[in-house]
Amino acid sequence: MTDTYITLAHGNGGRYMRELIEGTFARHLGNPLLDINADAARLPWDAGELMFTTDGFTVQPLEFPGGDIGSLAVHGTVNDLAVAGATPRYLSLNAFIEEGLPLTQLDRIVASLARAAKMAGVVVAAGDTKVVRRGEGGGLYLATAGIGVRTPGIELGMQTIQAGDAILVSGPVGDHGIAVMLAREQFGLKGELASDSASVLPLTRAVLGLPGLRFMRDPTRGGLATVAHEISRATGLQAGLQQAAIPVRDQVSAVCEMLGYDPYYLACEGRVVAVVAQADAAAALAAWRALPDGQDAALIGHMQPGRAQVVLHTPLGGTRILDELEDDPLPRIC
Amino acid sequence: MTDTYITLAHGNGGRYMRELIEGTFARHLGNPLLDINADAARLPWDAGELMFTTDGFTVQPLEFPGGDIGSLAVHGTVNDLAVAGATPRYLSLNAFIEEGLPLTQLDRIVASLARAAKMAGVVVAAGDTKVVRRGEGGGLYLATAGIGVRTPGIELGMQTIQAGDAILVSGPVGDHGIAVMLAREQFGLKGELASDSASVLPLTRAVLGLPGLRFMRDPTRGGLATVAHEISRATGLQAGLQQAAIPVRDQVSAVCEMLGYDPYYLACEGRVVAVVAQADAAAALAAWRALPDGQDAALIGHMQPGRAQVVLHTPLGGTRILDELEDDPLPRIC
Repeated sequence: MTDTYITLAHGNGGRYMRELIEGTFARHLGNPLLDINADAARLPWDAGELMFTTDGFTVQPLEFPGGDIGSLAVHGTVNDLAVAGATPRYLSLNAFIEEGLPLTQLDRIVASLARAAKMAGVVVAAGDTKVVRRGEGGGLYLATAGIGVRTPGIELGMQTIQAGDAILVSGPVGDHGIAVMLAREQFGLKGELASDSASVLPLTRAVLGLPGLRFMRDPTRGGLATVAHEISRATGLQAGLQQAAIPVRDQVSAVCEMLGYDPYYLACEGRVVAVVAQADAAAALAAWRALPDGQDAALIGHMQPGRAQVVLHTPLGGTRILDELEDDPLPRIC
Repeated sequence: MTDTYITLAHGNGGRYMRELIEGTFARHLGNPLLDINADAARLPWDAGELMFTTDGFTVQPLEFPGGDIGSLAVHGTVNDLAVAGATPRYLSLNAFIEEGLPLTQLDRIVASLARAAKMAGVVVAAGDTKVVRRGEGGGLYLATAGIGVRTPGIELGMQTIQAGDAILVSGPVGDHGIAVMLAREQFGLKGELASDSASVLPLTRAVLGLPGLRFMRDPTRGGLATVAHEISRATGLQAGLQQAAIPVRDQVSAVCEMLGYDPYYLACEGRVVAVVAQADAAAALAAWRALPDGQDAALIGHMQPGRAQVVLHTPLGGTRILDELEDDPLPRIC
């Protein structure tokens, strides 16, 4: 690993990406509004506050069971606003299209994007397209920026997290990562596992009224383990996760065992990790389980005093440290 | 030219790109706010109105005399807001980085982006980075989305244009296109011509108070001729341009003659084309000429009745039709 050239590890959501963002982007662009630890920027405005966020998408293949790069580009940005406690309103869309992409495929993808936007209640209000020469792009890259309305009176953030708070996840982890990997058929593996790609707005709305809600994040690049790491780093607390409580589908576990992946690092695109005061944990869980996308929601651990790291407690009473991600298990997953 | 695969002509700002945007993007995403003929979306909000826009950047080489992809990514989006009559406030930034890009170069580019943002008075409030494998990207692609405050009481738009209105340009055309082309050294040509890449905010502010100001646009992809075409198509009027009045630098003319380019189709990144009621044309020109970036501003023609096309009147009394752009003279220019 050299630090003079960009490597794939600079894009994997782990340490190298954090160092790149801190050392290059945040260093130059630093300003009080640009919080590299937040999912969306909070923008002071004349009446009320806007939330503003952006995300880029390079998933390969462009279409996979349960979604495509178009719906993903809506869900990614909508979900960043949703977990920040905002109601998404407007999106912008950039498309970098590689010469040679079949127009029929582009049409399907844009149609899917439009459906996802409609379902999430957002309007694509601005857009731009660029075409790059054959070989200079990966078929299609998308970027979306989103503007949302901040829900008044809600103060979410990692700084509100306390020892004893419960960690919840809204559903099984790793579906998106494994679904996309299987769609590549690169290991001769096939499967009909669908991505979890979806708007998490119903999930975030269901718990936004709970006074004990501290923080939410969608575990995309780097997965559940990376979100737990970010919380642990920011709070100085230990994230203790109970392996037996973390929902993982059998098919995801089977593929992970076969290929040596760890499901806790795999991307989800329709799940929420929430940190909630223990007193409200049962209410949050009940609210999620009442929703179609939250039926497998689970309380998976607690924030606790101790060394600031992520500790996985195994069913047999052992522990395993979930280190910060370094190698990219699955590039171009979102 | 086939219409089943994306070709480079789909990205050149001309007819094929318009058909792609109308036939695919606007067809699926159509909504009252998404105006594919506007530079920025006008967003109703509680107090006042936001303007929201986005642009993607794939210029090659990444650095060139007078600018780089970083400053360009600020100017492009700032200028889209400026010509729409807004004051830019916030930007989002997406970076698609190719594995292998030297970090020192990325650092220079992001630093340049930060300087350009500071000079234009905008804050980068959100960002995201993706890294793609070597060979899957062109070094670096950027996308920026921008939020601005709409200036109250100003009604700009092509629908306000009338026969007899004057067409103004704020400075020489084609500098950016030729500067980038020379930086490639692909024809064995070298030169020290600098791009005109800059924020046009001083220029737009200087004329925003004129009651006769109808419409402004920055002539980027497709250049002056494409802006004139867009105006002509939207108004049903003829755009009559006086060749002798259009400012073109000697070095730009020389390269164009050598390579068979037409300077009126070359991208500018720091110029404004304005349509102004004849009664206010002299005032607009004087306001621009008082600025460092407007010293070569010129009245270059008029909107007039007749067939809706762009007619170039040559110094010897002849005429030449400037057709809608089809072939891309210089791909990856912005």
